[in-house]
Amino acid sequence: MQFDLVIRGGKIATASDVFEADVGIKDGIITALARDLQNAADVIDATGKLVLPGGIESHCHIAQESATGAMTSDDYYSGSVSAAFGGNSTIIPFAAQHRGQSVRDVMRIYDDRAAPNSVLDYSYHLIISDPTDKVIKEELPEAFAAGITSFKVFMTYDKLIVSDEQMLDILVTAREYGALTMVHAENNAMIKWMVGRLVDKGHTQARYHAVSHPEAAEVEAINRGISLASFVDAPLLIVHVSTDAGARRVAEARLNGQKIFGETCPQYLFLEASDLDRPDPEGTKFCCSPPLRNTETQKALWRHLQAGTFHLYSSDHAPYRFDETGKLSSGPNPPFNKVANGMPGIEMRAPLLFSEGVLKGRISLSTFVALTSTNAARLFGIHPKKGTIAIGSDADIAIWDPDETRVVTAQGMHDNMDYTPFEGWQVTGWPVTVLSRGKYVVHDGELKAKAGQGQFLKRAPFDTTGYTTELAGELNPASNFGAQIL
Amino acid sequence: MQFDLVIRGGKIATASDVFEADVGIKDGIITALARDLQNAADVIDATGKLVLPGGIESHCHIAQESATGAMTSDDYYSGSVSAAFGGNSTIIPFAAQHRGQSVRDVMRIYDDRAAPNSVLDYSYHLIISDPTDKVIKEELPEAFAAGITSFKVFMTYDKLIVSDEQMLDILVTAREYGALTMVHAENNAMIKWMVGRLVDKGHTQARYHAVSHPEAAEVEAINRGISLASFVDAPLLIVHVSTDAGARRVAEARLNGQKIFGETCPQYLFLEASDLDRPDPEGTKFCCSPPLRNTETQKALWRHLQAGTFHLYSSDHAPYRFDETGKLSSGPNPPFNKVANGMPGIEMRAPLLFSEGVLKGRISLSTFVALTSTNAARLFGIHPKKGTIAIGSDADIAIWDPDETRVVTAQGMHDNMDYTPFEGWQVTGWPVTVLSRGKYVVHDGELKAKAGQGQFLKRAPFDTTGYTTELAGELNPASNFGAQIL
Amino acid sequence: MQFDLVIRGGKIATASDVFEADVGIKDGIITALARDLQNAADVIDATGKLVLPGGIESHCHIAQESATGAMTSDDYYSGSVSAAFGGNSTIIPFAAQHRGQSVRDVMRIYDDRAAPNSVLDYSYHLIISDPTDKVIKEELPEAFAAGITSFKVFMTYDKLIVSDEQMLDILVTAREYGALTMVHAENNAMIKWMVGRLVDKGHTQARYHAVSHPEAAEVEAINRGISLASFVDAPLLIVHVSTDAGARRVAEARLNGQKIFGETCPQYLFLEASDLDRPDPEGTKFCCSPPLRNTETQKALWRHLQAGTFHLYSSDHAPYRFDETGKLSSGPNPPFNKVANGMPGIEMRAPLLFSEGVLKGRISLSTFVALTSTNAARLFGIHPKKGTIAIGSDADIAIWDPDETRVVTAQGMHDNMDYTPFEGWQVTGWPVTVLSRGKYVVHDGELKAKAGQGQFLKRAPFDTTGYTTELAGELNPASNFGAQIL
Amino acid sequence: MQFDLVIRGGKIATASDVFEADVGIKDGIITALARDLQNAADVIDATGKLVLPGGIESHCHIAQESATGAMTSDDYYSGSVSAAFGGNSTIIPFAAQHRGQSVRDVMRIYDDRAAPNSVLDYSYHLIISDPTDKVIKEELPEAFAAGITSFKVFMTYDKLIVSDEQMLDILVTAREYGALTMVHAENNAMIKWMVGRLVDKGHTQARYHAVSHPEAAEVEAINRGISLASFVDAPLLIVHVSTDAGARRVAEARLNGQKIFGETCPQYLFLEASDLDRPDPEGTKFCCSPPLRNTETQKALWRHLQAGTFHLYSSDHAPYRFDETGKLSSGPNPPFNKVANGMPGIEMRAPLLFSEGVLKGRISLSTFVALTSTNAARLFGIHPKKGTIAIGSDADIAIWDPDETRVVTAQGMHDNMDYTPFEGWQVTGWPVTVLSRGKYVVHDGELKAKAGQGQFLKRAPFDTTGYTTELAGELNPASNFGAQIL
Repeated sequence: MQFDLVIRGGKIATASDVFEADVGIKDGIITALARDLQNAADVIDATGKLVLPGGIESHCHIAQESATGAMTSDDYYSGSVSAAFGGNSTIIPFAAQHRGQSVRDVMRIYDDRAAPNSVLDYSYHLIISDPTDKVIKEELPEAFAAGITSFKVFMTYDKLIVSDEQMLDILVTAREYGALTMVHAENNAMIKWMVGRLVDKGHTQARYHAVSHPEAAEVEAINRGISLASFVDAPLLIVHVSTDAGARRVAEARLNGQKIFGETCPQYLFLEASDLDRPDPEGTKFCCSPPLRNTETQKALWRHLQAGTFHLYSSDHAPYRFDETGKLSSGPNPPFNKVANGMPGIEMRAPLLFSEGVLKGRISLSTFVALTSTNAARLFGIHPKKGTIAIGSDADIAIWDPDETRVVTAQGMHDNMDYTPFEGWQVTGWPVTVLSRGKYVVHDGELKAKAGQGQFLKRAPFDTTGYTTELAGELNPASNFGAQIL
Repeated sequence: MQFDLVIRGGKIATASDVFEADVGIKDGIITALARDLQNAADVIDATGKLVLPGGIESHCHIAQESATGAMTSDDYYSGSVSAAFGGNSTIIPFAAQHRGQSVRDVMRIYDDRAAPNSVLDYSYHLIISDPTDKVIKEELPEAFAAGITSFKVFMTYDKLIVSDEQMLDILVTAREYGALTMVHAENNAMIKWMVGRLVDKGHTQARYHAVSHPEAAEVEAINRGISLASFVDAPLLIVHVSTDAGARRVAEARLNGQKIFGETCPQYLFLEASDLDRPDPEGTKFCCSPPLRNTETQKALWRHLQAGTFHLYSSDHAPYRFDETGKLSSGPNPPFNKVANGMPGIEMRAPLLFSEGVLKGRISLSTFVALTSTNAARLFGIHPKKGTIAIGSDADIAIWDPDETRVVTAQGMHDNMDYTPFEGWQVTGWPVTVLSRGKYVVHDGELKAKAGQGQFLKRAPFDTTGYTTELAGELNPASNFGAQIL
Repeated sequence: MQFDLVIRGGKIATASDVFEADVGIKDGIITALARDLQNAADVIDATGKLVLPGGIESHCHIAQESATGAMTSDDYYSGSVSAAFGGNSTIIPFAAQHRGQSVRDVMRIYDDRAAPNSVLDYSYHLIISDPTDKVIKEELPEAFAAGITSFKVFMTYDKLIVSDEQMLDILVTAREYGALTMVHAENNAMIKWMVGRLVDKGHTQARYHAVSHPEAAEVEAINRGISLASFVDAPLLIVHVSTDAGARRVAEARLNGQKIFGETCPQYLFLEASDLDRPDPEGTKFCCSPPLRNTETQKALWRHLQAGTFHLYSSDHAPYRFDETGKLSSGPNPPFNKVANGMPGIEMRAPLLFSEGVLKGRISLSTFVALTSTNAARLFGIHPKKGTIAIGSDADIAIWDPDETRVVTAQGMHDNMDYTPFEGWQVTGWPVTVLSRGKYVVHDGELKAKAGQGQFLKRAPFDTTGYTTELAGELNPASNFGAQIL
Repeated sequence: MQFDLVIRGGKIATASDVFEADVGIKDGIITALARDLQNAADVIDATGKLVLPGGIESHCHIAQESATGAMTSDDYYSGSVSAAFGGNSTIIPFAAQHRGQSVRDVMRIYDDRAAPNSVLDYSYHLIISDPTDKVIKEELPEAFAAGITSFKVFMTYDKLIVSDEQMLDILVTAREYGALTMVHAENNAMIKWMVGRLVDKGHTQARYHAVSHPEAAEVEAINRGISLASFVDAPLLIVHVSTDAGARRVAEARLNGQKIFGETCPQYLFLEASDLDRPDPEGTKFCCSPPLRNTETQKALWRHLQAGTFHLYSSDHAPYRFDETGKLSSGPNPPFNKVANGMPGIEMRAPLLFSEGVLKGRISLSTFVALTSTNAARLFGIHPKKGTIAIGSDADIAIWDPDETRVVTAQGMHDNMDYTPFEGWQVTGWPVTVLSRGKYVVHDGELKAKAGQGQFLKRAPFDTTGYTTELAGELNPASNFGAQIL
């Protein structure tokens, strides 16, 4: 056997197994796992290192206008570079439809933004804010045929929100084609109502952002989203779950035979509402939605991570700079409701979980791989091409030094941001080399890839195992949908 | 690279991935996974076949006296042979302490029974019925040091039952050493009380076996077992869960940060209480404990299998022949309470789940591998030596023909039984070759192994990831145990 | 002591006690309870009879336009007469605001409808469909000051539905003034979506009415309503609960310190979805919303009645005749979605519960009194003037013959309807005399009252015991409302 | 009408109603309720006072040997006197069977203790510690026939504990005769195991009493007790519930159609585990079982009181003096496990709930009456003779001054105790007059009754409304008991 590249002597981890072997790569594909592979054009010595599937960052906002119109600071170049330095080899940002906009146009626009720039392979989730008849009947099927097999909807934000009835239309269309629907679940009314009252009283500091987005708003919307999805027996992914009660609804729905999945994010595991108490405008750095919560909730989310409630752990990277282009666009000391929601994190996502989760014994290395890579590949239709180290898979590999300790600084990040919410954290375990289809993207702390090197990924339908047409609804007593009727 | 054996052209599945590759084996170890491996002393053509980790049957009764004194019909030879024909390469039966018996003696006795006879690698779970001070303080630590890292207790059966207080002693000892405790959870009082009343009224047909073991008895005992284990923050595996409410307690305990695991068995997924209605003594073939349940419960258990409630799917193989040595030992038409509890199934376990679960789209192939092999390896301390197909692992491999259909008959089984509860079932997908450490055990429908070929497995402690001493109890609010005090 | 009237020799029941005594009445007030009262201008011999507080029918539609514009067949005369023959002495129908209509006008209109006609004392619940700023800030406070201390909102019906945000405004206003909010909780989107699909497919028979209003729609909306009310720590009454899961949310909310109450109706305890299967148009008689459910749900609702989940049991009397003025207004065989929702029941409510509940031993006589009278008086601010037999209370009394058996017929009813859904039911226990403030309304099977004899009841605020301003939220962890902030 | 006594001008409260009226009493019976009653041999002016049903203290230990053999400091004289000064007119202490003792003897012994001494009417609950066949088949039926219609069992304490199987025998016997079973629910094993470990380590201060009786022990036992009772469809009263999770099991059981009731006590609403931290031996004053809990639990219990989870609120008066006859019987500074469990409270029970519950707006006056009097009368078969103010009921009345404020001191109590755990509490609202069958027991702060004035109450069976033989199990899906089989 001849190899273009052999990674030698490392410890390989998949979502299931940890073992020592060399990895042989040929034409961008993993073609051999064995001890002592020879005949390599190039060799990486991974002795003492971990050889992991490259991370798949499936929840990030790149080159996207925010709900308030501002553009993220990261484009597909800086965003994918930062992702790569964080151990990722694939990104799946969003392609967002504005009201009145054709989905065809949306896809073209985002192709133009991504193709020339991304250093990593990529796809999009399609955000649907205007599910007209044409969108539902023509454009979503077209997008699906083009390999966009996940749609996202919002239950909040006036410019993005879809009604429950629209959500049913989207869910049932997704079900028909085999797409997975994702949802930002917060009750819009509770939030708007609270924001109005708070602002009326002059309570505009960052700390009131958390007050205005109560846990109850998330829990209600999660419950409603699950009700709608289960009613039509469609799968649903609740993104960025930030509450214990919300996470429990997700877990319990699965016990009831419903195909409900959950995701949480580093900010909910590592930060707290008290971070919003820093004197404004500093506190605005920590404004995101759902907002940061308290210590008890944080502990509960760790328990859910261990218990398997969440299939995904994503950054929700939403890079708005701490200047007039981003967080401070409405002034140097903006009221919380004029602050772009979100924080950067694409580069810190995996290292934080490794340091705090794996090294502190909270989760296993295989669970780490599942949460940062394999599960996303499965849920979003790119497994086993991506998300694992196996024969025939793309050689998308992150080599980690489990012993390296760094102190996090904004300067150390490779995104276009001027702050990181994790400034000063001491983190052990960092990716040192990242390969994409066998090619170096990051190596020895240097960027090795060129803009546009990433490829668009045509994704497969949502895996319907345990969910075939024949069985649909059989095990979901909540479904009154009745294929026999409709 | 030189190989003793190459398995060529098959589709490999692990608990995480499915991919096509050749498997290279040297000195009993998997040393290469690649396309087109050469230099093999022997080759198996696996084109069109599945190449899976050999099954690990971790709940079976072999060469063991029953609670009523009868010996199982299978010894370690017939039991391991039948297991092998069912796609297994490892068995973990029980070594059962009788009251008054030294654990050292128990281990010696079972070594004598297993070592000369087993064709598969094996270990034991130690059944503790008499946890004297000496057992707790000397013998369990010795057993643990010898590689017996799982203990089983019974909450029912007069000859085996331990009290709640004894169970706490065992749990906390297991916790100290890193052993996993398993429990047969049924409320003894409810059962005895019902049996007494039923027999008094002359209700002795097999169907009353189910009546005498109500779902409530299992649910109560599961709840109690979880309470005891969580109180001392010790892990606990609830075996043969047969109820929806019981399974929910297991799942919810994990959501609460408790290390509780669950197992179910083929009889609860494929058979029903109505099977007990067959005219006696035929109905007695279906007496097992917990008993068969109804259709609604069966559906619920499938949902739990999909939702991840259960980590294990085991046979609870308890082979008592349908004659005077077994089921009919107390007469040709025995009352239900004189019938040895249990049924055979070691050979049918995996094929049934493959046929009804994988091929009917209820679970994925990777989930099948996890449930029948990998999870047992993890929970019982033999992963990754066993339970996966990875570099460095033992070449314990089952090659399955996914297209072969057979009708199940007792004659077709390789155990020492004269009946199978699955007589007449049409099952598609069968293991055709089984390797143990690279050696043929079954091939082309023939037994290739010799008695005693199997080796004793010295097992590692229960994996405490997410459970280190430092973190113990941190995420389990139920624990009042207080390491700081005790 | 001198009395205008003495009721002699009966068995009196209150929500708490059952005892034998005479009732002495003077100037319309109960002035004495004792054995052998003398000096009475008039005497009713109640030997062998039950002397109960007159029923309070707090959920009925009288002289009200339906959501589809049709007027109920009952005006305040026939409606109150029918109520009286059913053992009631007080009615609290709805005064419904149309969009664009002033609440002042609504109140004037309904005063005009009720005052000249009602034979029973009455009040209204104010249905709010258009909560403009003026309504919220001026008109609701005015209505409240006028003694209208309960508001109703709809989460479904396009002409009535309020948004979640409007509902928060109403809830917080109700909280401020001490009014109780009532809610018709069904998810509008699920219903509309299903109706659309069913009608498209030609599934328009009455039986599809139930299909189009799935249990999930009610459960979702109940959960949402509770979330909104608890968020602002306002009390909420979920009317006509028809599902087990919905009822459980109500009960659990109270366990969590939330002031949530529930009501169910005779149709959900005595009728089933299978009644809709009668050949159309007969099935349309049984169209109501929420729809009739199945046997299992019916049993569960009885359990909730026993367990105290429901504080109220009301008729939801919605009298649309089975002719072109009512059920068949859109044709002789209308599609289910063109049928006015509702059924008559004001006269049968109490007798059905007495016959099936009290006489069959499911509930006690005191529970019957609580469910049909006392609890409504308490929740709606007219206790102890109404709803009990106590010194100083209005002499609103229903004398029941517990032994009389009748077969129910539409002809036997005193409403303006041409059918009853309970046609042919054999019912034991009937009110034979009804007094309002000591005056005969019904006696010896005859109507004794004149139109306009009933008086408007200025109601007190919702009883805030266990709910004072000081304590508000103290025991409701769900409230993030924060009086200290807002 | 002629009266022996008229109570004039007070505000009367029942469990249902509050109204102003005079109470006319003749021959110890309430014969009239009216305004301005005349012709009274004696008159009490109750202007500005509350006229309530005398309290029924249904959980108190009087003239009873403790589990450790010590006799309570109160006999039937001091116990009943103290109860009377606390607003009670009936007491139902325990008659406790020792192992080996005949129930007939137990009843005779307690009759001898009570009859000559009690100033209040009384009955007993029969504690069963040795349910032999003779006890089950002969003696319990005899006791029941004699009017003892409630049995108590313990799931903890070595000298009292019954096994699960014995509990089933008792429950099914109680069910057959219509008796109500009460249970002290704590898991004996957890407690013994913890006590052993704590004492071994020298952790013997009073604060470890709470550590040794974890919340988990109560919750487990409550769950088990409910399982056993529901299995045979028998009613069960869980006494002194001290945990949120335990209370939830009680409430949820009723939602499931099970006849489960709950009681809590003042110590769990007003005291906390931190009280045990006082320097020993002071902390031992606060040792009771279940132990005092924390602030969060206390709040939860208040919520359950409001939500209706608990039907009873009792003192669990267990008077062991703070000297060598009681708390300090094993020395001046005893280890927690040698301290007699319990604390006095029969006199403070009602005043504390009035002051903290009614006056602070947490519960209504009617709820206060229900919790302290009426519900006990109902559950224990003496309603409406006791527990209400209604025509025909015994004139057992407590007249309260709602405005009087006192500071609690041990000296101010009338029991035989030398301390009160509520020393120093400022309490508003006190009973000033207590009548038993129309006779003064307490008046103007003076004892007016003589020893032996109280009468034994022959109690009726547990009220089976909603629970007739015909319906038994109909609405309780948990019951597998199957009357049709057994």
